[in-house]
Amino acid sequence: MTKTIIQTEKDFKELMQKMSSYEQALGLLQWDARTKAPKKGADQRSEVIGSLSTELFKLKTSEETGRLLEEILQADKDVVSNVTRQSAKELKKEYDRSIKIPEDEFREYSILTAKSESIWEEAKEQNDFEMFRPYLEKIVQFSRKFADYWGYEGHPYNALLEDFEPGMTVDTLDQVFSRLRDGLIPLVEGVTSSSNKPQTDFIFRSFPKDNQKQFSSEILSQMTYDFEAGRLDETVHPFAIGLNPKDVRVTTKYDENDFRTAVFGTIHEGGHALYEQNLPEELAGTVLSDGTSMGIHESQSLFWENFVGRNKKFWENNYDLLQSYSNGQFKDVNLDQFYHAINEAKPSLIRIEADEMTYSLHIILRYEIEKGLINGDIEVADLPKVWNEKMEEYLGVIPPNDSQGVLQDVHWSFGAFGYFPSYALGYIYAAQLHQAMRKEIPEFDQLCQKGELSSIREWLTKNVHQYGRMKSPAAIIKDATGESINPEHLLHYLSEKYKPLYQF
Amino acid sequence: MTKTIIQTEKDFKELMQKMSSYEQALGLLQWDARTKAPKKGADQRSEVIGSLSTELFKLKTSEETGRLLEEILQADKDVVSNVTRQSAKELKKEYDRSIKIPEDEFREYSILTAKSESIWEEAKEQNDFEMFRPYLEKIVQFSRKFADYWGYEGHPYNALLEDFEPGMTVDTLDQVFSRLRDGLIPLVEGVTSSSNKPQTDFIFRSFPKDNQKQFSSEILSQMTYDFEAGRLDETVHPFAIGLNPKDVRVTTKYDENDFRTAVFGTIHEGGHALYEQNLPEELAGTVLSDGTSMGIHESQSLFWENFVGRNKKFWENNYDLLQSYSNGQFKDVNLDQFYHAINEAKPSLIRIEADEMTYSLHIILRYEIEKGLINGDIEVADLPKVWNEKMEEYLGVIPPNDSQGVLQDVHWSFGAFGYFPSYALGYIYAAQLHQAMRKEIPEFDQLCQKGELSSIREWLTKNVHQYGRMKSPAAIIKDATGESINPEHLLHYLSEKYKPLYQF
Repeated sequence: MTKTIIQTEKDFKELMQKMSSYEQALGLLQWDARTKAPKKGADQRSEVIGSLSTELFKLKTSEETGRLLEEILQADKDVVSNVTRQSAKELKKEYDRSIKIPEDEFREYSILTAKSESIWEEAKEQNDFEMFRPYLEKIVQFSRKFADYWGYEGHPYNALLEDFEPGMTVDTLDQVFSRLRDGLIPLVEGVTSSSNKPQTDFIFRSFPKDNQKQFSSEILSQMTYDFEAGRLDETVHPFAIGLNPKDVRVTTKYDENDFRTAVFGTIHEGGHALYEQNLPEELAGTVLSDGTSMGIHESQSLFWENFVGRNKKFWENNYDLLQSYSNGQFKDVNLDQFYHAINEAKPSLIRIEADEMTYSLHIILRYEIEKGLINGDIEVADLPKVWNEKMEEYLGVIPPNDSQGVLQDVHWSFGAFGYFPSYALGYIYAAQLHQAMRKEIPEFDQLCQKGELSSIREWLTKNVHQYGRMKSPAAIIKDATGESINPEHLLHYLSEKYKPLYQF
Repeated sequence: MTKTIIQTEKDFKELMQKMSSYEQALGLLQWDARTKAPKKGADQRSEVIGSLSTELFKLKTSEETGRLLEEILQADKDVVSNVTRQSAKELKKEYDRSIKIPEDEFREYSILTAKSESIWEEAKEQNDFEMFRPYLEKIVQFSRKFADYWGYEGHPYNALLEDFEPGMTVDTLDQVFSRLRDGLIPLVEGVTSSSNKPQTDFIFRSFPKDNQKQFSSEILSQMTYDFEAGRLDETVHPFAIGLNPKDVRVTTKYDENDFRTAVFGTIHEGGHALYEQNLPEELAGTVLSDGTSMGIHESQSLFWENFVGRNKKFWENNYDLLQSYSNGQFKDVNLDQFYHAINEAKPSLIRIEADEMTYSLHIILRYEIEKGLINGDIEVADLPKVWNEKMEEYLGVIPPNDSQGVLQDVHWSFGAFGYFPSYALGYIYAAQLHQAMRKEIPEFDQLCQKGELSSIREWLTKNVHQYGRMKSPAAIIKDATGESINPEHLLHYLSEKYKPLYQF
């Protein structure tokens, strides 16, 4: 018996390494497609990605895999390792979800979402919501059906959240987001009505691309990003991707007339990359060698982007360096002016351009709409109207057209309902981690000022990175901060920072 | 019955696309490893390559594949397409060869060759043939055994040749290579004893890397290389790789103190790349979408490198351009001096640095040794002695040590016996194609002089590229030139070029 389970565990590890191999190959194909690949190769590349994805899906849902998972999960706790057991649990969840969807429905859904992404692109370009509507309606129908197949307690949206933020529920989100929204709205009003607005014209002066690249690399090195286990490349829509902890790649975008795109984009993606580079070696080749949720992953990128990268002390150390790479664009700008400019807060239409203060309101708006779509409270046909009303209510701005409104994000076109909350959750988590870190490292600001960021990274590794998917998102936050999710820290941070800055 | 075979053909095409997908993913992993990948990722990358290679091997040797191949090959000629039938023939050859080797022997061999490549590297570094000897002995034993498993007529080396140059035999090679050797030796003597040697010091002056890169790109464009279906990157050991005809990547190496490395390296790899970019669309996703043999592939790279790239007319067009990218390194060098310098011929120790004239002698030497190792006429233990004797006989130089002698090439360490002849075959073929092309395009030199290289590329596409693996190497040469393999054209070319240049 013992011999059998030893063999089973060995087979299971080999199976996971095989899954990981497919995932790594797919990751490389994706990275390549978004950075380097010749454009004419797109058709065959889709074939290759399709073939490997299909093989991976077959592997994850095969009867043999199902049997192996059962054997591991039924085995005595003493005979299989913790990592094996936890891996099997995660894979079993995925397995159960996959086999619950009838094959023909899944195929239809895959074809639909592949198609609808390009339809969305066209609809956005032509500012034509009606073009996208029938596709989105079908996607919503599928999402509702999938939620039913998967099962849930309470709100059907809970079933979708599980894919992105395991354990998160509508009950919690409603509570957390409404407190956050209520706390943010007066802050946004304070900023909006302030007369102490920053000067920002100098931001848009020309900053040579190669110099931005060198500055970005230096900042990544300060963050302890390991260039021998990664690289920095250019792309259109920046991302970080961890093929494995020894190969984690950052991409960024250079706008010669707005250095912020590359600087804050690189720091943000660098935060994701540090998570992946510091996953523990003993999880390599297992399903646990990954971030534990989208929200926790985003907490890492936002921690670095905002709590480090928009911290005044960080710029006390790096402003000279930035100036040395620029073409004299900051010569009439002192540090205070610079700091205020990169922390400009104002309501805007586009989520991905939003500032620290207003960002979460964009997310809450989407969350409320998604929830309504899934339980039928909101109809797809009413979306443009609902969107604009909420924009006015939360941000005080009304999109001049649907391209800049309800059509601005790609996510819905590929069916990613339940994903958006992660962005705000990540921000809330980041503020909680920031608060807890400052308690343990009171010299946080001095470290930023001296460019000694390794203690900061090590704290995050100790409290977050090192667990991979061994711990749930809730446990990560609880153990690191002593609290469960709590939006007060984010509100406190914003209030403390923006009231003096905007003098309200 | 007809319906069944239609379904069989459809299944077969899907199987080939799946094989192609694995091969494309493996190709990308290989390209990435040799150009961009972070070095710490090497271990997991090996795992990924191992997993995907194993899956591909399983796919190629599965019983199901065997059955499918039988069904296609036994089907009526009218009901399956030519492409399908020819594809099945090629795969059947590979299938038969694979299943003839007992699984445990193949595994042992794979482990041996993986290991021995790093042993070779160390042995070369330490100039210690004895370190490498036991590994090489085992590899030779395996190669002999594989030849027996595969079967052959005549010499056992014929079985190995089949992997690289289908249809080629020792009988033909003996005849062709001995004529070539006998023709080359007096030419080499003529060059060696000439007093009209070129001045070459200016070659080694500093040429900035970025400028070399731009010049290389311009030359590739002149050659009609399509940058929308490819890219140019830097590497240590240059290569070209075709993932598919719409994604064919060239790599090159920049030596700031020897511009020839990048210039001729890029033209050479560009020649390989043009073959891959111009494979016909109707073969995409099949096993026939590839060069028909190593020798024919090499004929394309050598055609461009030597018959175009070392042609005086080509430089009449491009010397000014080269100068414009250089730091004034050629300001005291006229075109004649430049032309003679880039066509310097002299016996040397290292194959990959050899010139047009002496290159083939390096190959013939290796061919004779391989042949002797496989039929037992030469023992591995005697290799250093045999090597040095032949170097003296053919090239008049004796290596000062084994690192620069018998240990210089990597090929044997991974068991590639039968590969080396392709290099000289490619050169012989290229000279034949060059001769035939000049008959059909008498204005060849003027085209080079005007930089109008598209007619040259189109001729090669018409006569070589467009067939992929639909035609055998012998048929390609016969149909394009009206002759079977014939070394006289190469000898004639070298004689006509080098006698006036070196005045002998």
